Amino acid sequence: MKNTFGSAVALTIFGESHGPAVGAVLDGLAAGLPVDPAAVAAALDRRRARGDGLSTARREPDEVEFVSGVKDGHTTGTPLTFLIRNTDTRSGDYEKTAALLRPGHADYTAFAKYEGWQDAAGGGHFSGRLTAPAVAAGAVCEGVLAGLGIRVYTHIAQCAGIDDAPLDPLCEALPALLPGHFALIDPGREAEMQAAIRAAGAEGDSVGGILETAVTGLPAGVGEPWFDSVEGVLAHLMFAIPACKGVEFGAGFGFAGLRGSAANDPFVLKEGRIATAANRNGGVNGGIANGMPVLFRTVIKPTPSVYKEQATVNYAAKQPAKLRIRGRHDPCIVPRAAVVQNALTAFGILDLLTVRYGTPAQKHGLPKE
Amino acid sequence: MKNTFGSAVALTIFGESHGPAVGAVLDGLAAGLPVDPAAVAAALDRRRARGDGLSTARREPDEVEFVSGVKDGHTTGTPLTFLIRNTDTRSGDYEKTAALLRPGHADYTAFAKYEGWQDAAGGGHFSGRLTAPAVAAGAVCEGVLAGLGIRVYTHIAQCAGIDDAPLDPLCEALPALLPGHFALIDPGREAEMQAAIRAAGAEGDSVGGILETAVTGLPAGVGEPWFDSVEGVLAHLMFAIPACKGVEFGAGFGFAGLRGSAANDPFVLKEGRIATAANRNGGVNGGIANGMPVLFRTVIKPTPSVYKEQATVNYAAKQPAKLRIRGRHDPCIVPRAAVVQNALTAFGILDLLTVRYGTPAQKHGLPKE
Amino acid sequence: MKNTFGSAVALTIFGESHGPAVGAVLDGLAAGLPVDPAAVAAALDRRRARGDGLSTARREPDEVEFVSGVKDGHTTGTPLTFLIRNTDTRSGDYEKTAALLRPGHADYTAFAKYEGWQDAAGGGHFSGRLTAPAVAAGAVCEGVLAGLGIRVYTHIAQCAGIDDAPLDPLCEALPALLPGHFALIDPGREAEMQAAIRAAGAEGDSVGGILETAVTGLPAGVGEPWFDSVEGVLAHLMFAIPACKGVEFGAGFGFAGLRGSAANDPFVLKEGRIATAANRNGGVNGGIANGMPVLFRTVIKPTPSVYKEQATVNYAAKQPAKLRIRGRHDPCIVPRAAVVQNALTAFGILDLLTVRYGTPAQKHGLPKE
Amino acid sequence: MKNTFGSAVALTIFGESHGPAVGAVLDGLAAGLPVDPAAVAAALDRRRARGDGLSTARREPDEVEFVSGVKDGHTTGTPLTFLIRNTDTRSGDYEKTAALLRPGHADYTAFAKYEGWQDAAGGGHFSGRLTAPAVAAGAVCEGVLAGLGIRVYTHIAQCAGIDDAPLDPLCEALPALLPGHFALIDPGREAEMQAAIRAAGAEGDSVGGILETAVTGLPAGVGEPWFDSVEGVLAHLMFAIPACKGVEFGAGFGFAGLRGSAANDPFVLKEGRIATAANRNGGVNGGIANGMPVLFRTVIKPTPSVYKEQATVNYAAKQPAKLRIRGRHDPCIVPRAAVVQNALTAFGILDLLTVRYGTPAQKHGLPKE
Repeated sequence: MKNTFGSAVALTIFGESHGPAVGAVLDGLAAGLPVDPAAVAAALDRRRARGDGLSTARREPDEVEFVSGVKDGHTTGTPLTFLIRNTDTRSGDYEKTAALLRPGHADYTAFAKYEGWQDAAGGGHFSGRLTAPAVAAGAVCEGVLAGLGIRVYTHIAQCAGIDDAPLDPLCEALPALLPGHFALIDPGREAEMQAAIRAAGAEGDSVGGILETAVTGLPAGVGEPWFDSVEGVLAHLMFAIPACKGVEFGAGFGFAGLRGSAANDPFVLKEGRIATAANRNGGVNGGIANGMPVLFRTVIKPTPSVYKEQATVNYAAKQPAKLRIRGRHDPCIVPRAAVVQNALTAFGILDLLTVRYGTPAQKHGLPKE
Repeated sequence: MKNTFGSAVALTIFGESHGPAVGAVLDGLAAGLPVDPAAVAAALDRRRARGDGLSTARREPDEVEFVSGVKDGHTTGTPLTFLIRNTDTRSGDYEKTAALLRPGHADYTAFAKYEGWQDAAGGGHFSGRLTAPAVAAGAVCEGVLAGLGIRVYTHIAQCAGIDDAPLDPLCEALPALLPGHFALIDPGREAEMQAAIRAAGAEGDSVGGILETAVTGLPAGVGEPWFDSVEGVLAHLMFAIPACKGVEFGAGFGFAGLRGSAANDPFVLKEGRIATAANRNGGVNGGIANGMPVLFRTVIKPTPSVYKEQATVNYAAKQPAKLRIRGRHDPCIVPRAAVVQNALTAFGILDLLTVRYGTPAQKHGLPKE
Repeated sequence: MKNTFGSAVALTIFGESHGPAVGAVLDGLAAGLPVDPAAVAAALDRRRARGDGLSTARREPDEVEFVSGVKDGHTTGTPLTFLIRNTDTRSGDYEKTAALLRPGHADYTAFAKYEGWQDAAGGGHFSGRLTAPAVAAGAVCEGVLAGLGIRVYTHIAQCAGIDDAPLDPLCEALPALLPGHFALIDPGREAEMQAAIRAAGAEGDSVGGILETAVTGLPAGVGEPWFDSVEGVLAHLMFAIPACKGVEFGAGFGFAGLRGSAANDPFVLKEGRIATAANRNGGVNGGIANGMPVLFRTVIKPTPSVYKEQATVNYAAKQPAKLRIRGRHDPCIVPRAAVVQNALTAFGILDLLTVRYGTPAQKHGLPKE
Repeated sequence: MKNTFGSAVALTIFGESHGPAVGAVLDGLAAGLPVDPAAVAAALDRRRARGDGLSTARREPDEVEFVSGVKDGHTTGTPLTFLIRNTDTRSGDYEKTAALLRPGHADYTAFAKYEGWQDAAGGGHFSGRLTAPAVAAGAVCEGVLAGLGIRVYTHIAQCAGIDDAPLDPLCEALPALLPGHFALIDPGREAEMQAAIRAAGAEGDSVGGILETAVTGLPAGVGEPWFDSVEGVLAHLMFAIPACKGVEFGAGFGFAGLRGSAANDPFVLKEGRIATAANRNGGVNGGIANGMPVLFRTVIKPTPSVYKEQATVNYAAKQPAKLRIRGRHDPCIVPRAAVVQNALTAFGILDLLTVRYGTPAQKHGLPKE
């Protein structure tokens, strides 16, 4: 339903980049769950732009106002509402070029859909800024999952052509991620990756990358056959990340080059429990979690806002035109998208869990098998 | 919602592989739309197994019984129900090995979810057989879209390591596809592809591939920002295809290696209308159709039913075991999955269109821009 | 969503009165729940027409075919599909008068909505016949609720001007209902009620009535604030009963004449548990079950098919016309509607419970408070 | 879905009576629709408490902050968010009695559902205060409907035992309603009604009443058979009005005493269009609008907050207790509920229309028949 997603737990997002505020409503949490404002702030800080040549110079504190659903540091069981004021808005930068359709952006589709009534400044409703309240909501969900022994973990698998160290598909020990803006496993890759991003930025260009997420601790049996599979629900959500253009689970597109005998994950017993010896299926069989880590990767396209001159069309004049984008833009949003991906995954997993086990289980724990 | 999907047009699927029948309910069609049983039969025939060493030897006529919603060859506007009887069921083949979890299949997840009460024969509710009524429903949707000038087109981009000829991303002239089982652009690849599949089958193994779909004629402005994007809705649906493990739009995972200046599609005027000079974004910007062909690719993993001996676990005995699968299985389901992908895409596109323009527009046409 | 209802448990109904079959899909049941075909048959038998001057002479066995979701007498956890063949169809009776809009029926609204493409025979998709598969689905839900200690009970509170004995609002001991067609508490009212119905029928006229339902054993805390209240969900469902034109909970419209001091139900302790001394609020406060019996009443309008001559319009000729209905019609559908009301209530309550406690709780029981 | 309702247009409400703010998100409006802040303010003013012995002494300006979705006085097509700050909160009044369950209120059900974590002050999430942002959203919907020739009209049919003048069921000329707090047709009834309410209030008691709504101009064919009928959707919404305990359409419970020949509305031609000579069916046949005014009535129970001493239970001590409610409470919320009813009806009708005709039709008009 348009700007609301979820079956048992629902997330609604609203706002425009240069309107009064952006926000989100998270509905369907049990009552009495701890809400840690510091964890929310930390997630938002990780998502925040730096103005360091890697991400946009727009700087806003991203202070979350909890409007409803929290009391004395715990959920009340009613909708949690997050509001983040827009303080650093400079519409002037945008209005000059409003009729010049920016390639790769939603400018033209906004015209097609909203017939010129959209709030175009800063991308309006399509701005990545709307991911901030979604990240806040996801951070709360991550806290709830942590209480159930479930962890969501996202690293930058590749960015600007530089790979991170690979993730063990069995996730036997999830390596710590670098603190700060770059969620990397290997500290040795950060400088190289930053240099590659800066190099593209220096040329007025931008780069993309690949994000990889693991969800550990999810019990087997979660997810539904056919439509509301773990894969279908998570993929649906991942495409809400601006610039996400692909999602693959486990071996993903690599399956096209495998034979079945090499693609299957043999079942084994591990401490008396059923597990798989490999995890090429990304923790999902028949759409349903099999108890192994859920593993998926997304591709994030390069930021469409490049400073090089581009050919385009003036929508008002219906004339060909040349566009040179100004304003403040990230040469790479992959590190920031990692935080959004982790947050939306946490939300999606909590929804799937709640569909199966009901709301009070969020607080009182999942049934023992 | 579990086995129902869609907002304005909804598809519900039901049945078990070896139960009395499989079926689907398609709700939300306008009244008075032609229903062509021959087109439905042709789609089912394309999806049907051949018993030719390429697909399973199970042979069933797949005759669709229209239970409701059709009268005198037209929709009545009420739910269309499709029923396909299961006639060639041989449970015996399966029961012997029911406790031996087949790697790569939903056997274990079915136990985890249904606690042993599932109808396991032939994969039960997880069987690819349930895609037959979905294909019938999709074939009806394809007919409705055709009446609106919208075409859905799926070819086997790669199978068993053999590539089809590439598809022009602008789809200026969609090439005819081979008739029969292999939806290929290039007739010269069929024999090679079949040989490669047969070779894997002869070794008791299986292969996967990549399917590519184009949707032409979709008006700009269809789709919703954030959650119900064209990409999110279609990806959600694609993961309902058994063995689909990834979806990418436009340049997809290739975006990770592109710079923004090469990833953006410049806007141009074509016969007075706004278009893009390239189509690396797969016809979608900001989640919303931009009027160019919607382009996406999925990966279909190799059939998990391989005849080679596999290590597994006996679920009942909770003991390691060796499994040698018998029964009837496809060494490759990619050609059959192509039909399912086309059908589910047609359904998803019709839903997105109807969300925007309402039900009567299915019959009376979309508003002129 | 049109012909599907429910959040965690979903019911889809399909079919036309004179098409091949009517049916329903019930999705969201846990696996391993007993399905008692005799209980389903008994519910259908109670709903069935008698041809006794009280209900239509159309006689069909209403044999339910279980198409999916059941194995060895238990649910498999996948969608349950019910099919009931239409065997006694005589379209001829209807076609003569198809263009004459029957007052009080959906003839005109069907034209407005389906533009003449509807299957009009016997009321088509609007026929009360579609309640048969819904009754079958509800009978299964009643069985599930019984396993959880929850009982749904519906009696004919009033019909043809004759009242049944009143129901104790605390439902301390639910009196047995008459077997057969008339769900009455007081055996002494049956003859009188039948006589009053027959008298109206003899004059070519029809009568309506009031149905009262109690749900006992529902734990406090079920239901959601604001939109998905127990009252909102049940009322929504009740209006799916053909001819239902009103729903009231507890004292209902009688509240308009009460003062607050007389309308409130004082809280008391009963065997250490919180209860209310009266039940004027019908077991619901703030939309949420309070642990007392849920009590509501619906009004069922008189069957619109009366044999007296009526003024109407010929839709095709757009001319005033006189209509004298023929065919087979009940002078009173109240006793049959009681079965539908009980079934839909059971379904709605099971949905509300499952939203709160998850699917496996249907089988393994609700958490202890 | 819990605190979100609607198919094509969705309303989400959030907040607690004594939290920072209450609010609503209205999603699914077309772009370019005028938003009149004065009309929103007027609706809120009508809903506002007066402190005049008729409604609570709590006085808040109810100033709506438009957080998103509006620009230059028009909708942008993205979610509209309304925020109303809570300024006059005095939790002290409530905390003393928090453990004493107020009869007729949601205190006990909140404990049952939220296990003590609810924000109980002032009724928390169950407070009538949450209807303020819903009224703001509904006022915007009323404006949209007005642009389509559809009017929603609600009067106080009965309050404190005093009847308003009856409404013509054909609504040929909708009489003006009294300005101010009492939406009455007959100016002569206001003083009497106010006196009766004050009399109850003077005794520390409260009164209820009946609200009647008419929707004129709704085209025939809107609404869905079975579950998403006009009646089902509107009834579902009406039970979101705090204290609503019943809904009836047309003759409603009066149908129980009518014969079919008197209950049917004969079809007639009026200026070449099909109409009905009477409107006992309240503008709905088979769940679908027939083009006549949609007519329904709700019952609003007396405010449960009475000042008389009541028997109850101390939840914490699990002991019988006596309760004497303090704080600020309306002896009658019927006049305020009228505004909420009108607003939710406008929202529901706009949703039903948009399901049928799509979003752009909200701005560009409904198709001509």
